[in-house]
Amino acid sequence: MRGLVFTDQLELKRDLESLSIPPGEALIRSLVVGICNTDIEIVRGYFGFQGILGHEFVGVVEKCPDAPQWEGKRVVGEINAWCGECPACHRGDESHCPNRTTLGIFGRDGAMADYFLLPHRVLYEVPNSVSDEEAVFTEPLAAACEIPDQVSIRPQDRVVVVGDGKLGLLCAQVLHLTGCELVVVGKHLEKLDLLRNRGIKTCLLGDSLPGGVDIVVEATGNEDGFQLARQMVRPRGTIVLKSTYHGTPQIDLSMIVVDEIRLIGSRCGPFGAALRLLSSKQVDVTSLISDRFPFDEALTAFQKARENGVLKVLLDF
Amino acid sequence: MRGLVFTDQLELKRDLESLSIPPGEALIRSLVVGICNTDIEIVRGYFGFQGILGHEFVGVVEKCPDAPQWEGKRVVGEINAWCGECPACHRGDESHCPNRTTLGIFGRDGAMADYFLLPHRVLYEVPNSVSDEEAVFTEPLAAACEIPDQVSIRPQDRVVVVGDGKLGLLCAQVLHLTGCELVVVGKHLEKLDLLRNRGIKTCLLGDSLPGGVDIVVEATGNEDGFQLARQMVRPRGTIVLKSTYHGTPQIDLSMIVVDEIRLIGSRCGPFGAALRLLSSKQVDVTSLISDRFPFDEALTAFQKARENGVLKVLLDF
Repeated sequence: MRGLVFTDQLELKRDLESLSIPPGEALIRSLVVGICNTDIEIVRGYFGFQGILGHEFVGVVEKCPDAPQWEGKRVVGEINAWCGECPACHRGDESHCPNRTTLGIFGRDGAMADYFLLPHRVLYEVPNSVSDEEAVFTEPLAAACEIPDQVSIRPQDRVVVVGDGKLGLLCAQVLHLTGCELVVVGKHLEKLDLLRNRGIKTCLLGDSLPGGVDIVVEATGNEDGFQLARQMVRPRGTIVLKSTYHGTPQIDLSMIVVDEIRLIGSRCGPFGAALRLLSSKQVDVTSLISDRFPFDEALTAFQKARENGVLKVLLDF
Repeated sequence: MRGLVFTDQLELKRDLESLSIPPGEALIRSLVVGICNTDIEIVRGYFGFQGILGHEFVGVVEKCPDAPQWEGKRVVGEINAWCGECPACHRGDESHCPNRTTLGIFGRDGAMADYFLLPHRVLYEVPNSVSDEEAVFTEPLAAACEIPDQVSIRPQDRVVVVGDGKLGLLCAQVLHLTGCELVVVGKHLEKLDLLRNRGIKTCLLGDSLPGGVDIVVEATGNEDGFQLARQMVRPRGTIVLKSTYHGTPQIDLSMIVVDEIRLIGSRCGPFGAALRLLSSKQVDVTSLISDRFPFDEALTAFQKARENGVLKVLLDF
């Protein structure tokens, strides 16, 4: 089978051995797989992962010996394969299971291959009302849905999302559903337009920024974004950190104490809720697709995904 | 009158002019004033404050033209003199009022003087059941009471306080009241003994530290303490930052995102609750008194307060 493998460099291999299915796992045939910033960072060497990339997928279960009712179903899946037996799993924090492997990120080959494996217990059937190109956004949309799971967001709250990349645009749409007073701060007029078309207020970096904000979602993943968030949030306000950072920025912890700021790290989220938002069309993801490539052109697709201003690039199998 | 003034150096002046009372304020005669780490840091030049030091006090209202019912009452007081008219005050965040002055810390002379001023609306009458040397701990004890106001702490929670200084010992006693599974990590056996005598578990730094902790209170105010907190807290756990830091430590924000840690800055707290805990003797503060000096020996008292291993030093008027 074919697979996009990262070792020291990115390589499309065509002669990978077929997979044997461990207990509890399903063999899934890829339909569409998205390129995420995390994939690009793995290729830059930031995560130390080597293997087949890809964790944003929609596929069809080919074989699932331990739970054959899944066979033939169109599915998406959580990217963390948790153990189900440790204190974190028992507490309901499965995505923090210390024994987890993570699809295409840590200890487990990913979905950028003709076939891949995941435990059937992390799979979700995709409703017919959700197309393949919508379903492939389930994972990042679930990550956006993690925010209201962690922070109560009310219609009277003033909320800012910093960052108009893919994750910022998804977070903005999810937060807009709460009826809060939302502004999205970004650098790219054409990306912010996608939100303005949906009635979401935006602000170009360089214009006068909101101040005294109750909740700021930092979705740029760079230190400047964090400083902006710090500048806009009110005392006793909340900053949600939605993306990882390169290096270890210097943070003024004293100001966090003096202003009693809450800083909340936020990662993977609820897949069921994300699928429901896709099915009800309360969130638009297809306008975030910049380009699609057949899997055979995966290397070209990665080049495209790294270009400035490009949003989601999809791989079709 | 006498007053302990910091300009470029600390000086006990004896010829200060008597104070005139602005509208809404009370003239207070000092009875006992505590030396806080913040005072020591001001003298080290870290806060940029110049003027009369002191914010932990118990005193007697000498004159209060706008609210004469206060005259003759023994009082403690919030250290932030808020405006009462801005959005922060209207929201109930008076201690974050952007127009505030802070007793002996910012824009307002402090209580290390025979007399000082505070708005009568920030005063609290001290019950007869609370002695002067107990009442002078109201301000730091209120700061400890801020923690359960910010974070729900349940009997099933595993909680660690890092730091066995004055604030750490007060935080530990307040958190112990919740019935949580508490361990205090410190460097000083004799300070930890004060807690062990009250049935609180302790752990000397260097011994095997707790792991997988739900809530860690960082009360050391140094970067090592923060790293310890980071190491002990579980994924999706909470770190409460209780003290300010010198400089801007480098923080691994990515790990905060990946482990979905909550970081909560925590400063001033509820005075009414602190006075009630002192009155009911649910918290012991007198064992934290290392030494007492007459105010005329304030400079010696400051030297004492800076010595290693010393807890609270009081000034008697």
